[in-house]
Amino acid sequence: MRVLRVRYNNTAFYAALREDTVLCLNPQLGLVDPIPLEDVSILPVVTPSKIVCVGLNYRAHAAELGMPVSDEPVYFLKPPSAVIGSGQPILLPEISKQVDYEAELAIVIGKECRRLRHDQVPDSIFGFTCANDVTARDLQKNDPWFGRCKGFDTFLPIGPWIETDVKNPDDLTIRCIKNGQVMQEGHTSDMLFSPYDLVVHISQVMTLLPGDVILTGTPPGIGPMQPGDEIRVEVENMGLLINPVRDSMGRTGEDEVPLQ
Amino acid sequence: MRVLRVRYNNTAFYAALREDTVLCLNPQLGLVDPIPLEDVSILPVVTPSKIVCVGLNYRAHAAELGMPVSDEPVYFLKPPSAVIGSGQPILLPEISKQVDYEAELAIVIGKECRRLRHDQVPDSIFGFTCANDVTARDLQKNDPWFGRCKGFDTFLPIGPWIETDVKNPDDLTIRCIKNGQVMQEGHTSDMLFSPYDLVVHISQVMTLLPGDVILTGTPPGIGPMQPGDEIRVEVENMGLLINPVRDSMGRTGEDEVPLQ
Repeated sequence: MRVLRVRYNNTAFYAALREDTVLCLNPQLGLVDPIPLEDVSILPVVTPSKIVCVGLNYRAHAAELGMPVSDEPVYFLKPPSAVIGSGQPILLPEISKQVDYEAELAIVIGKECRRLRHDQVPDSIFGFTCANDVTARDLQKNDPWFGRCKGFDTFLPIGPWIETDVKNPDDLTIRCIKNGQVMQEGHTSDMLFSPYDLVVHISQVMTLLPGDVILTGTPPGIGPMQPGDEIRVEVENMGLLINPVRDSMGRTGEDEVPLQ
Repeated sequence: MRVLRVRYNNTAFYAALREDTVLCLNPQLGLVDPIPLEDVSILPVVTPSKIVCVGLNYRAHAAELGMPVSDEPVYFLKPPSAVIGSGQPILLPEISKQVDYEAELAIVIGKECRRLRHDQVPDSIFGFTCANDVTARDLQKNDPWFGRCKGFDTFLPIGPWIETDVKNPDDLTIRCIKNGQVMQEGHTSDMLFSPYDLVVHISQVMTLLPGDVILTGTPPGIGPMQPGDEIRVEVENMGLLINPVRDSMGRTGEDEVPLQ
């Protein structure tokens, strides 16, 4: 099932995508008939209480950075205020001169859980989606704990929908495409810690709640974005997360080209 | 005004503390009469969408650790799942051999805000309270971004109430008291970045929402806790945040002393 979060008649709810209609998934709302997709507003697909981001989880990306791999997953948090949906612009902060894309597979938690065993994980996951762990690379070196360089508003595009039927999350191709050109390409089989392993590890530390998000790390090929770029993140069978890039004022930059 | 979050007749709401009664602050609930304090359950005083934690913000603490001070605030996030209220136990994870207290002044945001100027800050703050940035010190060295060592459930005691009348947050004494003995003592005038400065800085990066929390750093004297300890954090005029310390199973450790 492909799950969207939508607004219809001033009410926000989760809905199943069926070709060009959606089906409301909240029975309390009494919306039993299919609603044409053109009649709803698409919202960011999650409203997480927390977003846990695993770093250096692809062998090839760790090698690209010359970083040693860790015995255990290492992670940081992004603020929920960074979340945007597919189609919304990534705004480049004025203070940064290099903002990078990082394509990632995102896990969406389905139920409150803690201290999970491996066999309990599939039942605790709602689904998977595409994400972009946007990072102000030049600010990172003076930001040891990543609170700022990864925390700006619009720095977490996620979506377009949550795919609930993923038979094997260890067998997915992930790509980042900038202006039509493939910049990142990886496969989840290259992960040091599999998606299920990550949920086990993180649930030993903190209680996970429905809608919480775990970003599983990025494959090699990260690089910068400019105003006017279009960034697509693609995970096999999960659709395309498409975001235009704008400057801090929402401009493409094209209006700054001097007239000839 | 001293503001608590309470549960009464299965409804949670913010309430003003008036000696041994509380006054409901949500007019929609129609609870106009004072409610005896003994008839309500006290809840953790905040339900933040994010918790931004500033590190190395007291000159004396940075000196204690031999760390250089930064030109700009540096920070990380703690997950909302770590929040507990006054009176609730701090649980020491089995995996850690040293868990430290870190007494801090906490800022509670009052309204949605971004890119604030200094003069806009007081109007954007709801109030201040006491907090304890509990940290698994031994896990910190392999946890560069602090996602795990500061993220365990119960690792953010905060409360007991939000004090809304704070004339000068740069003139407050802060203490941590372990089993009756003062372990940390500092003064907010020793901060590298004042509470208002921190709100300005952080609001340039991320939109702050009502209930969001900013922890302002800890003064010198951090140290370990053991099951059976009692930790009190005291900020001038803000009451006492009192938390017992327990092992991962909620035990004081006393039952493990062999019989003579």
